[in-house]
Formats: sequence, structure tokens, C-alpha cells
Amino acid sequence: MTSDLSPLAGRGQIARARRESLGSPFNAEPMTEHAPRSPFHPYEGALPPTPPSAQVLARFASIVGENYALTSASDRAPYEREWREHFTGKAAMVLRPKSVDEVAAILKLANETRTAIVPQGGNTGLVGGQTPHETGHEIVLSLTRLDRIRDTDPAGNTLTAEAGVVLRRAQEEAARVERLFPLSLSAEGSCTIGGVLSTNAGGVQALVYGTARDLVLGLEVVLADGRVWHGLRRLKKDNTGYDLRHIFVGAEGTLGVITAAVLKLFPRPSAQATAFAGLPSPEAALDLLSRLQARVSGAVTSFELLPRIAIETVIAHDPLSRDPLASAHPWYVLIEVSSQSPEGLRESLEATLAQAIEDGVATDAALAQSLEQRNAFWRIREMVSEKQKALGGSIKHDVSVPVAAVPAFIARASAAVARLVPGCRLMPFGHLGDGNIHFNVSQPQDADKDAFLALWNEVNELVHGIVASFGGSISAEHGIGRLKRALLPGVKDAIELDLMRSLKRMLDPNGILNPGKVL
Amino acid sequence: MTSDLSPLAGRGQIARARRESLGSPFNAEPMTEHAPRSPFHPYEGALPPTPPSAQVLARFASIVGENYALTSASDRAPYEREWREHFTGKAAMVLRPKSVDEVAAILKLANETRTAIVPQGGNTGLVGGQTPHETGHEIVLSLTRLDRIRDTDPAGNTLTAEAGVVLRRAQEEAARVERLFPLSLSAEGSCTIGGVLSTNAGGVQALVYGTARDLVLGLEVVLADGRVWHGLRRLKKDNTGYDLRHIFVGAEGTLGVITAAVLKLFPRPSAQATAFAGLPSPEAALDLLSRLQARVSGAVTSFELLPRIAIETVIAHDPLSRDPLASAHPWYVLIEVSSQSPEGLRESLEATLAQAIEDGVATDAALAQSLEQRNAFWRIREMVSEKQKALGGSIKHDVSVPVAAVPAFIARASAAVARLVPGCRLMPFGHLGDGNIHFNVSQPQDADKDAFLALWNEVNELVHGIVASFGGSISAEHGIGRLKRALLPGVKDAIELDLMRSLKRMLDPNGILNPGKVL
Repeated sequence: MTSDLSPLAGRGQIARARRESLGSPFNAEPMTEHAPRSPFHPYEGALPPTPPSAQVLARFASIVGENYALTSASDRAPYEREWREHFTGKAAMVLRPKSVDEVAAILKLANETRTAIVPQGGNTGLVGGQTPHETGHEIVLSLTRLDRIRDTDPAGNTLTAEAGVVLRRAQEEAARVERLFPLSLSAEGSCTIGGVLSTNAGGVQALVYGTARDLVLGLEVVLADGRVWHGLRRLKKDNTGYDLRHIFVGAEGTLGVITAAVLKLFPRPSAQATAFAGLPSPEAALDLLSRLQARVSGAVTSFELLPRIAIETVIAHDPLSRDPLASAHPWYVLIEVSSQSPEGLRESLEATLAQAIEDGVATDAALAQSLEQRNAFWRIREMVSEKQKALGGSIKHDVSVPVAAVPAFIARASAAVARLVPGCRLMPFGHLGDGNIHFNVSQPQDADKDAFLALWNEVNELVHGIVASFGGSISAEHGIGRLKRALLPGVKDAIELDLMRSLKRMLDPNGILNPGKVL
Repeated sequence: MTSDLSPLAGRGQIARARRESLGSPFNAEPMTEHAPRSPFHPYEGALPPTPPSAQVLARFASIVGENYALTSASDRAPYEREWREHFTGKAAMVLRPKSVDEVAAILKLANETRTAIVPQGGNTGLVGGQTPHETGHEIVLSLTRLDRIRDTDPAGNTLTAEAGVVLRRAQEEAARVERLFPLSLSAEGSCTIGGVLSTNAGGVQALVYGTARDLVLGLEVVLADGRVWHGLRRLKKDNTGYDLRHIFVGAEGTLGVITAAVLKLFPRPSAQATAFAGLPSPEAALDLLSRLQARVSGAVTSFELLPRIAIETVIAHDPLSRDPLASAHPWYVLIEVSSQSPEGLRESLEATLAQAIEDGVATDAALAQSLEQRNAFWRIREMVSEKQKALGGSIKHDVSVPVAAVPAFIARASAAVARLVPGCRLMPFGHLGDGNIHFNVSQPQDADKDAFLALWNEVNELVHGIVASFGGSISAEHGIGRLKRALLPGVKDAIELDLMRSLKRMLDPNGILNPGKVL
């Protein structure tokens, strides 16, 4: 239903209501719009796994019990394709273990029999990392039954959760003990802790709290040979040797299977203020961010950039959304500040905005006067990707550049893409404070959608080239998976790729973990 | 002069004045107090490096030029021992390259000739990681001439500094552009960026800003074979493959040589308030921390725990220090809150302390009324380690446990050590908010110092056993180096050690990088 390639503001009641209205991801209509297939053969450049025999499959099934070894096409289907149907595949079997011991036994057998394993959490990934290839030779290892919260420690500000715990449940558990687990993204109602760690998810509060990587103190990981690394530390400081956590976080299940994690909790903000500001340019938005951070620093929890066309598209196609300001402005930012100390927070935001208007940095601004108005502001931001579909086909990029370079990047990329595709409608938006822009390009009005989408690779190449010239990243928060695997050698230097391949060989010498993904 | 095993509050004028009064570290008097030697032969469990021939040494010298290849005993001396003289060694040569290319050429030659390289920054490490063994077969690679600040980007909040840039210079460069580089520790006037990253240094502001690991966006690293990994990214978000940064941070120069880093900058706090509070127990201190964090969260930049004996020792032996509160209390915390928003900060601290006193959590408190009083408060904290020498020999531990477990850890470790060494004087102090306690034990009054120090290993074993029972760390911030190398197999599980050894083999197959350290 939605072609969203970007984690959205999954916060507050509206976000929740919207997602619920979408129903199960797997009831979604097949999409006509889609990303192009990788030019690679699935296992090109990787060790080809051995197709499991009936006998081997029976041994796998006996580890989890027949009820949790899914073999029929209908049982397997929800694990073989993701909800947008950009990536569909075929698995030899789907295994749903209940314990770390079962995961360990599965990997040990897979390693011995050279069977490919595709780890999967909530199946909400956006780059095809969690679904099997079309070969029918791979086993999907679904972690959703490892769903225990093993420990909640509000005094120590930690939460120890198994890989299959749904993100929203972790947030709710934190709230139950008056704490905040700040990772927040649109898929939070179905994505899992193991998944968000394996993809190092970002979301709308990364500006202050960092990405998933920054929120993990310890890990439990099943290695490719079935051994278990018990690294569930709860320590803020530990300098006893090499840090192994960060090898597995963001590795998209290619180096080991995360089965549990110790997550950091934070105090819950007691005050929050939300505003929409109109601005002449991305430069002005950056200036405003800098003013706001100088004034309230760590309290700026969200700072989301939107071009006018995004506002227009949402208000034209979402009956519940209205223009947030009295007149039109070329650019907008949605700002949220949050703090434990209610004193002066709202006033600081108000004063900063007033001064910015006086100085010509902002042209208008509105503070949310109620929770309802706050939710209405967030709804606009959340609807951008979904309503962009109303403009026809769109070619998407999840990129980042140094924060200070965002305005120059937007200017150069916009000019270049407009030259390549005259009449295209540019919709660069996203997490300005993280330097993370979803540079989305909608087709020209009344143009042929397929002809436009045929330009996907060419537009990608152009935009990614400009990203590279700013020392940026072609995947800021969604990962590599299958979608960007072919692009990696073009953006990483040979030494870094060699180090990555060495790590892969060291940790998965038989290439059984998610082959044909990332590397 | 000082037996300090703990990074102290290196902030403000007093800290600076004190360090300057100490003069050059290398003029320090030899210490009578010392940690015991490792029971290992230097290279036990590691590949023994090849002693470099005169010919090989000449080839090394030709890379940097004769002026920067130090061979005489007097030229080498400052690089062969650290200032406390706990660790002394003998190098075949000291090389002082000026560029990354020279470092690369040195490592390439070392790898070809199997010559051991000991990377060194400011030579302020506390566990013997940066000095050569006694064999005379190793080359010290001093990075202090790589001292360029390559870029300062206040808009993007980054600072790109070479490995040899002294920490204080990085702080000052940040201040010059109205930013904060928050890493702060007692050695900041001489330790270097390469050194603090290689040891993942902590210090007195880790509570909010994290350790060195949390402050680095990108790295440039010369690998063991002389190849250079150009990973100087400035991105807040980058999910294009495995994260290699964290492999090298905290690896103590055993996996690669960090030559430059992109560091994160922050807005400078415009308001600060400092207080000393007296409390009945560490439990009460933890309660106070939790109240304060619930009120001002990210503004609690320091929260340092001290027992009464620490106050008594300082005021008895430092003529410039006075009791911070009117009467004596069993425990104290030194609190600092910092913020960009001056509104209400001091009032929040005051109100929290007043409520804590009313609730019996604190028994008394004083807010610093002037910069002078603030510095006097910090001076007490800074003098603890130094003045502890007046009590005679002391056996030290740099440990961490989960924050919530600190009170129980202190109680159990204190009881156990008091049983083992009746009459000993316990001085557990440090970074309560990080769970990081410097559990120092002074000898009983009038006891024989050598006899007491002979118990070093036994006391260590006892304390570290209790640390382990809390899932803690035997090196919270100082690292492993030589000092704790023999202890590592006792505290790491076999799988983690195996992963560490695999990483070492992968990145340094010939074992030339700092052999006999860490692993």
C-alpha cells in the first residue's frame, strides 16, 4: 500500500493509528512500482551454498519440532517476500526456533552441511536483506519466537531483550518502568530488536540518541559454527580487549545471528514542544538548527526538513492534513524539543524561532498548542512517502552527507537530476540533523511511469556520484542487503572491502550466513 | 610524583595549575610503589618478533631521516619508560615519523622483516601498553610529530586531527570555534588523540558524552602490512557495510596504527553548577543520581563518589583544601550539571538537593557560589589519588559494574578485603554514573609497605572475583596492556578470547604490532 522507503516518524497516536489502518503488511496490494533487480547472480562473489537434501531438512526440522519447521508454500510465503514485494524469493524451509540452544543447533548443522541460512526478524527491512533468494536452496531462520524480555533494570537503565521482541514492546516495557527506549521508526509495531540491531536502524530520534548501534551495551550472538558468544554486558565502561559488539551490529545477519541484547534506557522527557517553521532554503534550515542546538542542545530530538512540494502533495491527497502555516514557503522544518526539565523549554524554542524570523532565517513558524496539533504536524511528515505515490513512479535514495554539506548536496543533486529528467519533481526530505536525506524523485507529470522508472540506475548513479563527492554514504540507514550490493564496490575503497571480506571469511568461512547479501 | 592510576578531573584552572606544577612527567622521582610484573615472558602466547639487525635498523632510519631515528640510550629513554616507572623497557630504536606515508613505510618494512613495533602517543597510558619490553628487540613508533589539525568544521561539528595532536590542543581548537570536545582527563596536557582512541579513554565527562569510542566518526589507520585504511568519514549515519572503526578503537595498537580521526564536537555549555553533597551511603548516592537525572537528565555531566576517608586524606595533606561541608558524612558526591540553556539549571540542582535532604537521601549539600569555590571542590576530587600516597602503599583496581550494582559491589568488596587485610584503609571512589569505581586499598597504618604490596595479586584476585560475580569489568577505562594481560583469560570466556585472537591473526598475521600486549 505504501511505497515508503524511509523510516517515518512512528511516534504518537497518529502514527499508531495510521499503521494500524494499513493492516497486516502481508495483506498489502502488490506494488507496480519497484526497485530494479540486482544485476548479480545471487551468489556471485560468494560461496554457493549446498541445496539441502530431504534428509538434511528433516534434521533441521527435528531441532525445532515439526510445528515450527514450515515447508508448505502457503506457510512459507509470509517469510519469502517482504510487504512491498520489491523482494520475493523461495525458501527450502522456514525454521522458527524458540531458544538460543535451538538457534545454535541450527547453525551448527547448517555449517556442517553448508546450508544457507537467512536470519529474519519482523521482515520489515527495505533492502532485501531478510528474504531468501529465488533459488529455493536457503533456509529462513525466523527469530520471532525468541521474544522474551529477560530483564528490565530501571536503576541501571538497561533492558535485556531477545532478538524477536518487537520494538514497540521494548518501548512499552521501558515506559512501564518510567524510562525511554528512544529508537523510533515507522515499522516499530512489527520490526524486532534483532532486526533493528542487524540493520543499525536510525529513525526520527537519532539526532540525540544515536542509531541502534549507540543504544546497545551487550550482545548474545550465535556464530556461524553454532558456538554462542555470551556478550550480554551491562557495563557503561569496559576496556578489557577488543570491542566485538560493533562487528555484529549493522552486519545484516552475514557475520552471526544476534539472539539477545542489552539495550540502554533513558529518563522519560517530561516536557516536549513541537513547531513547524517555514524557511527560504536548506541553508536557512541548517542555520536554525545551529541556533537551536546552541540554545537547548541535547533537547533537539527531531529536526526534519521538507520541501514545499512535500507539503502540497500531502495536503492534496490526505484529507486529514492542512497547510501548517498561513502562507507557502519554499522549505519547512518540523522541530521537536524534549527535556526532563520543563522550565523554559517551550520558551527557548519560541524565542529561538522569533529571533530567527527577525533575522530573516525563518519566514514564519507555528508552535503546536495542543497534543492534537502536535499530532497533526507529525502526520504531515509521516504522510510524505505514502502520498508521494500520488505523483506516479518515484526513484529513491537513502543517502547521507556531512550535516554542513546538506544544502550544497541538495542543490547539486537537484540541478543534475533536473537536467537528466526534465520536468521531474524533486522531493528531498528527511533527518537534516543527521545529514540523512531521502532524495526522492517523482516522475514528470503525465510522463510514462515505466519509462521513468527505467532510469532508476542512471539516476542512482548520478545522485550517488554527487554523494561521493561530499564524502557521503549511499545507504544512511537502510543498509545494503540485495538492493545496493552491486553498488558497494563502487563506493568503498578496495582496502575497506578487503577488510570486510576478511571479517566475513573469519566469522563465516563456509559462507552459510545470508549469502549474496551485503558483500 | 603522583601514583595516580585514575584519570582525574582535568578541567578548569586548578587542574591545569596542578599539572603544570608537576613539571615534565620525566622529571618525576622514581616511585617506590609499583605494580607487580606480569608473570608472562613478554611474548608468551604471541609470535616472537625478529630482533632487527643493524642493516634493518638503517633501513628504518632512512624512512624518517636520521634526526628522527633515535638510537642513543639517552634519546630513547623518555620513550622506554612511563613517568611512574611502573613499566620500563628497552627499544632497538625510536622512530618519529612526520607523515602517514612514513608510518605506512615503517609498517611495511616491519611486516617484511618481522620487526616488532610499539605505537606510542603521549606516553601517559597506565597499563604499560605504550612502552617496549625489556628485550631491546622492539621499535617504538612515536606518533607525536603527526600533529596537524587537518580540518575544523563547526557547522558540521567535527574536528579532524592527526594521532599526535595533544588532547588539550583539540579541546582548545574546539573552543576557538565555540564548540566543545568533551573528552577530559588528567593527562590531557600530554596525552594524544591517537592514544586516547587506542585506549578508549573515559574521564570525568563520560557520563554524558561517552568514552573516546563514542566521540569518533571516522578513522585513518595504517594496517600491519603498511596499507592505509582511509576511513575518515564525517557522517552521522552510514550503513554501507561492516563498522571497522570500533575494531581499532580500544585495541591498544595491536591491530593497526591510528594516524588520524574525525572527532565529534558539541555546543559549549553556557551554564554550569557544581555541588558537594554528603550522604549516608553509596545507595543514597545512586538514589540522588537517579533523582537528578530524572530532573535534568543529559545535563548531569559529572557525578563523582568519594568516601569520607578520601576527604580526610586530602584535607590532611593538601594545605589548599578544606572540608567541603560543615560536618563529616560517610560518603560524598561531587556533582556538576552543564547546559546550553541557563534557565533553571542551578535552581533544578538546588531543588533536587533540597528535596533529597528533606527525604533523608542526602544529609547536607553546598552549591559552589563562585568559580573559585567550584575549583576548590574539583581540587578535592583531583587530589584523592595523589594524596593517598601519604597513607603508604596502595593496591589499586580500575573496575566497573552495572551502575545499579555499585553499592552492593562496594559493600562486598570492602568486607572481603577487610577480612583479608585487617586494618587496611579502603578508598573506593570514582565515576558512579558510569559504574566505574577505582577500588583502591591503602595499607594498614604502620604496617610494612612491602609486605602489604606483596598481597597485590591476592587482593586483585579477590576484588576481581567479586567484580565478575556482578558481571563487571576488571579494566573499566585504563585497558589491558601488560598490567592485566595475564588476567584476561580468567575473565573472558573462551569464545570471546578466540574471536579476539582471530581478529589479531587476521589483521596482524606476523604479530608485529605491539606483541605481548593485551593478548
